[in-house]
Amino acid sequence: MSTRREHDLLGDREVPADVYWGVHTLRAVENFPISGVPIGANADLVVALATIKQAAAEANRSLGLLDARRAGAIVRACVEIRTGQWHDQFVVDAIQGGAGTSTNMNANEVIANRALELIGRARGEYTALHPNEHVNLGQSTNDVYPTAVKLAAWAGARRLAASLAALRVAFAAKAVEFADVLKIGRTQLQDAVPMTLGQEFGAYATTLAEDEARLAEAVAFLRETNLGATAIGTGITAHPAYAEAVRARLSTLVGVEFVTAPDLIEATQDCGVFVLVSGVLKRIAVKLSKICNDLRLLSSGPRAGFNEINLPVRQAGSSIMPGKVNPVIPEVVNQIAFEVIGNDLTITLAAEAGQLQLNAFEPIVAHSLHKSIEHLRRGIDTLTTRCVAGITANRERLADQVRRSVGIVTALNPYLGYARATELAAEVLASGSDVREVVARHGLLSPELLDRVLAPEALTRPVPVA
Amino acid sequence: MSTRREHDLLGDREVPADVYWGVHTLRAVENFPISGVPIGANADLVVALATIKQAAAEANRSLGLLDARRAGAIVRACVEIRTGQWHDQFVVDAIQGGAGTSTNMNANEVIANRALELIGRARGEYTALHPNEHVNLGQSTNDVYPTAVKLAAWAGARRLAASLAALRVAFAAKAVEFADVLKIGRTQLQDAVPMTLGQEFGAYATTLAEDEARLAEAVAFLRETNLGATAIGTGITAHPAYAEAVRARLSTLVGVEFVTAPDLIEATQDCGVFVLVSGVLKRIAVKLSKICNDLRLLSSGPRAGFNEINLPVRQAGSSIMPGKVNPVIPEVVNQIAFEVIGNDLTITLAAEAGQLQLNAFEPIVAHSLHKSIEHLRRGIDTLTTRCVAGITANRERLADQVRRSVGIVTALNPYLGYARATELAAEVLASGSDVREVVARHGLLSPELLDRVLAPEALTRPVPVA
Amino acid sequence: MSTRREHDLLGDREVPADVYWGVHTLRAVENFPISGVPIGANADLVVALATIKQAAAEANRSLGLLDARRAGAIVRACVEIRTGQWHDQFVVDAIQGGAGTSTNMNANEVIANRALELIGRARGEYTALHPNEHVNLGQSTNDVYPTAVKLAAWAGARRLAASLAALRVAFAAKAVEFADVLKIGRTQLQDAVPMTLGQEFGAYATTLAEDEARLAEAVAFLRETNLGATAIGTGITAHPAYAEAVRARLSTLVGVEFVTAPDLIEATQDCGVFVLVSGVLKRIAVKLSKICNDLRLLSSGPRAGFNEINLPVRQAGSSIMPGKVNPVIPEVVNQIAFEVIGNDLTITLAAEAGQLQLNAFEPIVAHSLHKSIEHLRRGIDTLTTRCVAGITANRERLADQVRRSVGIVTALNPYLGYARATELAAEVLASGSDVREVVARHGLLSPELLDRVLAPEALTRPVPVA
Amino acid sequence: MSTRREHDLLGDREVPADVYWGVHTLRAVENFPISGVPIGANADLVVALATIKQAAAEANRSLGLLDARRAGAIVRACVEIRTGQWHDQFVVDAIQGGAGTSTNMNANEVIANRALELIGRARGEYTALHPNEHVNLGQSTNDVYPTAVKLAAWAGARRLAASLAALRVAFAAKAVEFADVLKIGRTQLQDAVPMTLGQEFGAYATTLAEDEARLAEAVAFLRETNLGATAIGTGITAHPAYAEAVRARLSTLVGVEFVTAPDLIEATQDCGVFVLVSGVLKRIAVKLSKICNDLRLLSSGPRAGFNEINLPVRQAGSSIMPGKVNPVIPEVVNQIAFEVIGNDLTITLAAEAGQLQLNAFEPIVAHSLHKSIEHLRRGIDTLTTRCVAGITANRERLADQVRRSVGIVTALNPYLGYARATELAAEVLASGSDVREVVARHGLLSPELLDRVLAPEALTRPVPVA
Repeated sequence: MSTRREHDLLGDREVPADVYWGVHTLRAVENFPISGVPIGANADLVVALATIKQAAAEANRSLGLLDARRAGAIVRACVEIRTGQWHDQFVVDAIQGGAGTSTNMNANEVIANRALELIGRARGEYTALHPNEHVNLGQSTNDVYPTAVKLAAWAGARRLAASLAALRVAFAAKAVEFADVLKIGRTQLQDAVPMTLGQEFGAYATTLAEDEARLAEAVAFLRETNLGATAIGTGITAHPAYAEAVRARLSTLVGVEFVTAPDLIEATQDCGVFVLVSGVLKRIAVKLSKICNDLRLLSSGPRAGFNEINLPVRQAGSSIMPGKVNPVIPEVVNQIAFEVIGNDLTITLAAEAGQLQLNAFEPIVAHSLHKSIEHLRRGIDTLTTRCVAGITANRERLADQVRRSVGIVTALNPYLGYARATELAAEVLASGSDVREVVARHGLLSPELLDRVLAPEALTRPVPVA
Repeated sequence: MSTRREHDLLGDREVPADVYWGVHTLRAVENFPISGVPIGANADLVVALATIKQAAAEANRSLGLLDARRAGAIVRACVEIRTGQWHDQFVVDAIQGGAGTSTNMNANEVIANRALELIGRARGEYTALHPNEHVNLGQSTNDVYPTAVKLAAWAGARRLAASLAALRVAFAAKAVEFADVLKIGRTQLQDAVPMTLGQEFGAYATTLAEDEARLAEAVAFLRETNLGATAIGTGITAHPAYAEAVRARLSTLVGVEFVTAPDLIEATQDCGVFVLVSGVLKRIAVKLSKICNDLRLLSSGPRAGFNEINLPVRQAGSSIMPGKVNPVIPEVVNQIAFEVIGNDLTITLAAEAGQLQLNAFEPIVAHSLHKSIEHLRRGIDTLTTRCVAGITANRERLADQVRRSVGIVTALNPYLGYARATELAAEVLASGSDVREVVARHGLLSPELLDRVLAPEALTRPVPVA
Repeated sequence: MSTRREHDLLGDREVPADVYWGVHTLRAVENFPISGVPIGANADLVVALATIKQAAAEANRSLGLLDARRAGAIVRACVEIRTGQWHDQFVVDAIQGGAGTSTNMNANEVIANRALELIGRARGEYTALHPNEHVNLGQSTNDVYPTAVKLAAWAGARRLAASLAALRVAFAAKAVEFADVLKIGRTQLQDAVPMTLGQEFGAYATTLAEDEARLAEAVAFLRETNLGATAIGTGITAHPAYAEAVRARLSTLVGVEFVTAPDLIEATQDCGVFVLVSGVLKRIAVKLSKICNDLRLLSSGPRAGFNEINLPVRQAGSSIMPGKVNPVIPEVVNQIAFEVIGNDLTITLAAEAGQLQLNAFEPIVAHSLHKSIEHLRRGIDTLTTRCVAGITANRERLADQVRRSVGIVTALNPYLGYARATELAAEVLASGSDVREVVARHGLLSPELLDRVLAPEALTRPVPVA
Repeated sequence: MSTRREHDLLGDREVPADVYWGVHTLRAVENFPISGVPIGANADLVVALATIKQAAAEANRSLGLLDARRAGAIVRACVEIRTGQWHDQFVVDAIQGGAGTSTNMNANEVIANRALELIGRARGEYTALHPNEHVNLGQSTNDVYPTAVKLAAWAGARRLAASLAALRVAFAAKAVEFADVLKIGRTQLQDAVPMTLGQEFGAYATTLAEDEARLAEAVAFLRETNLGATAIGTGITAHPAYAEAVRARLSTLVGVEFVTAPDLIEATQDCGVFVLVSGVLKRIAVKLSKICNDLRLLSSGPRAGFNEINLPVRQAGSSIMPGKVNPVIPEVVNQIAFEVIGNDLTITLAAEAGQLQLNAFEPIVAHSLHKSIEHLRRGIDTLTTRCVAGITANRERLADQVRRSVGIVTALNPYLGYARATELAAEVLASGSDVREVVARHGLLSPELLDRVLAPEALTRPVPVA
């Protein structure tokens, strides 16, 4: 294998001649053989790094700190990366020590070498264009990396938001479709009082809409950058005008307004925004898991379960039980939820472990956040298209359960009082009879009044006492 | 012991004659001998329950559903509870089954019996004034209890916010006091570049200010009530005008505007707001723990540690090592943080476990949230008054560390380049010398330029290349 | 209020004259106003401390390090505490900084002052008998406190084991009672194949038996002490024969063999045993929660649910829905499980946060572990006596479900093959018919063979192909 | 693309002609586009599946249930898989719904089609050899899958155990190397009393040895299988002798004795063993994280930190600070620990969510457990070879700290008493002097006695009072 020689503070090393990464990346690959997942597998992160490096080069050029030839080459290399050309050159393991330095240096080296090529120089000819001195100019891992992780999460969260909205719309459509399907609501798994199946599905739409709003609020904080902070937030080595220049360029490139953190010392060490965003992802996971639990429960059966709704059949359910079908789509979403809640703990632990001027554990934060966002999004898409959209109701069974329900006695409280109604309920239950029959037997309400009180529209909304 | 007889669907039971609670409470006390902590120990919750019951009685009276005499008596009983008179009558265990029904019935019974007394009737004479039919009129546990838990958390969170603000102010005062104390910043526990101790403490003030803002945003959602939802959100048995009437009364009584949830079905089953608020508490815990870790690290020593700052001495540190003093105040805050993070998991688990139209596990949510809020608040107060306010700096030691630092070589990057500076750093480190000396020895920068580049004001903020 | 003056390294303080605790306790009470729960609320911990102090005094006397008069007084004071006399003197907050020093000093002071009284001296007259020099002789918080926490957890865990065994027996009794009740088993909430209700309850007994075994194994490690380690495990100030002498005395007093850790440095800093024990408690919680989920599901209804079993009625279930009954006992156990899982996280965080020669966060470990053990035990007792023992089966409904089940087609696999059986299942489901009927209609098996294949005893155990 | 047609209960589908998997796998791939990680990436799981299928085929042949030709072909296919030939055919996503059915069917289909090929038939010609009827004979996902997950975890855990042992040996070697290096021990980050650096590293060896033992105990439970349980543990369709036959074959193939669970109903639904094993992995993670925290702390500096030990330099530490080196290897291990603790929560959640006769969420358990085991192992290997083995001590600095330490006053307790020693410590601290000097100044101990009391060998172990 052909190689080129590179140098760092540990000495010289041979690097494969045909790769864009260099000696820093090489050492990182050797040091962190952990997950087998390279950072390049997180396309959002690679694009974010290239976008930041491009913004920095443009800012540095505008401030006269970087000559046009080098700046131009760096920008072209970054544009190539942003369009997906060199993702396979981002080879450092996603789980890595060093607070992201290896990720930043992987980016610096790939960009430098590609830029060298673009200006007709050989890879590794760093005297002409240097990973640290030119690509990383005015920067530090400690401002580039957190900003890149935020930008990547922001991009992923936007896609997640769209998926959430589609699921919400699917539930809302079912709410309309099932608006007139009366059923027995349940509290604590015990038969309670009537509602419509449309109300039940409408609640799922509502609860997801709330999460869309919470996600949007949290994601907005990802637009805060600490570029210009350099090593610890004091801005050492950075030009005084650099922070604003790079922020403005980044905003233009991404198409959304970024904000420079007012306290760069704080912004450089704080992982609070990741805890915040992950907390919202956890909330989404909790709600999705609850909804999927409900869907599995409502579709339990077919003969010895609730059997209220039917989920679309997606695959045979058993290698041994012929004809069995399982709620596999909600089940996979439950599991994603469990993973997201676990990831949230990982992120919490990493955030808490930060010390003094930096949190050294952001790589696992970035990795966990990425998985949470992506898996949630894919799970939601599967739930929307392969499950919710095709749900049907067993209308007759539901109507029958309302008719036989003891709980509708609650509607008689205003007429009989709680204490008398309690005795009535006991009689209905013991006799195996139904409420109408027992009320009629005792002549407690006139048939007309009883009809009015137990009419579906009266049972599913507040009504005045007749 | 003198008793009175009460009746419920299980039959008759003797209740001590001198208590205000009744048969439902009695059975709950027997069923849930778990934590030994009665709900009455959470004063915010008791007050919240009484406030809601008062608002409901006033709303029902205004709608003509409850006569003035009963309503008046109920209101007077509630006012007494709100002023702290009958907290000892709230005896159900904080950890209880039944989705809060026992808490709601404990409140209904205490209020009913005290109201009976106020209108000259005997305790237990429920035909005159009934816990369910009058005190609980238009209500269900499933709307009263979540609203009470939110109202209680809201009250606690307001006090917490004030404590957070005081801690932030204490850190900000130290930031001013230490504004001119130069020190070495650290990343990954390794010496990095200079900063001021004021910047370090200022970052703590900044980070807490962010949490104050996040807490305020989250707490605002606690003002959403589902009163009027009754059993499952359909409003069965509630007068159509009741929801708005009770919301308005509650807002007046509390002095803040409450909002009725737009989808009462969703609001009755959803624990999302608790996940949200607990998530913010967890974030506060994470940050406080990180800050306390830093304080303990910076004050480590006195002779074999960082020894940069001194925490006030609060107690002897050892039963065996004479003269030893420990950072006991930050240590207790660390532990509170660990508890809050654990409580957040408990709340997450309980929220996820909700099924269909109700979450049966809100009592453990309420209990955990209460502990998180209260312990955080008390821990913060202790940290503010017994630790942060009295911190002093070891200025000479800090100045000496800057002088001997290798990291200030970073400031020479713009003049020497990263590669040359790396060699310089190695030489400084190997020789046991300092940067100024080695630079001077090699004649790399003029003494004047070196003075300017290594001046404290140049090292702790962005400066143009000289 | 009458006071006495005491002195420590911070200076003099007035202590209430009538208390046994002294100046160290006073300062701790002021420093840690966190949970309001005093360490005295954990009787196991108070008894453990007194037992260790007694063992130490006896060991020191036997080694000639402590005179008989002082040793005798200390022992008498400890015996009084062990019999419950002075628990109210253990007033330091359960959540405290200082790695347990305040707890140890609270014990040292109470014992010293009570011992002083017993030898006719005044409280506070420490020149006669000193909390540190005599009660704490040869000891450090760092060996006494972890040993006390272990001993307390050991005592609590033994009671928990007995409760677990009782619950297991209750389930086993139900397994016998329901041995002949055929029902449809379910996988993924979908109807699967037949089993007996006895098999279902028998599995709960089995799974708890496994946890009893795991608990016993974990608890055994709580018998390892680091007494003799003193401050950091080097045994500084301790007599070389002390460690063995105190271990032997402690074993005699407790009635179980304790073991001195082979590496006292490690034993003094390590919280691994608490992570281990809490992990087993978490496993118990997970299983109990799963079992309670099942009980709630199987008893769902009464008319629109599974309705397979009936839980004993323990209280009215609703403040608004007359006659409603809820599974309140399983619900409270679910919540305890969520708390225990949260506590396990707290303990994990505290264990991870230990630094160098000591874990400063053992007080929150002790507090969380105590709550987990006690709440689990009480929850289990309630579940055993108030729920499981009274469960009944709805035999007719269960039998009917088996008859109508599609899943019994699985038993025909060996005769028809999986592919043919799949078609058969589809036909049964579509036609609303049952398996016997469709098999008969197609003449696939002789009636005699079908009877044999679908006999209850053939459906619920492995049988050879007929 | 050439295809073949396959059929399942949903109808017909075209499957690529050149793959070994079939229609069930196809649908699963479409249903679960979640993580992008195929089950084939977990080589242990693929091998485990093939081993079980081979054992089952051999058992079925021995019982006369499967003819020699089919059995032989199945066995040969399995052997090929076990040697790594067809791992790329295991394409279902690691995160999947359906309780592992898709994994089991992926295995059944690959084996069936490869076996068909081996007997000269076309892929998809299932009438000759059927995935369900022959490969899955006597089996169900619900016994095969849990057994495979256990077997895979067992194999991974054995490698982990070897890595743990190597790390323990590396620490033990350092304990010997540093046996005579005196240093100041610390409690609560404050200077405490002397110890040797060897004792410090020896404690790490000891604590890991304990975890090796705990891991071995937990892993032993992974040898319990529920093969023979089929769908829900009743053994429906399985030959009565099958369970023992397959267990014996499996034991032979793996080379370790497997045990058939005594209660197959329980074994089929219970995830307790995964909670147990993950709990031990969490404990290992907690300890490793604590150790890595210590290593980072002890090596902090070089000039403004503890600077007691030096970690080997593995890569440049900063993209901006020349010459900076960071503890990147411990840092990556910390992050793995955070991930493992998060995975443990995911596993806990999944285990708790099991319902009735099956836990549908085992795929996320399997995935999380696999990551925990593999990442821990790789992190440990990196820690051993790239960090611990190369650690050196700064002996002079350590000796100097002991000399200047206040804490050695503790050794004078037996001679001066705690109260007098406290005053002495205060004087040492205030004067900036050292203990020897102040003791000498006051003539408290003779120089000879002082020498003896403060000798290194006297300070680091229990000694009798001189």
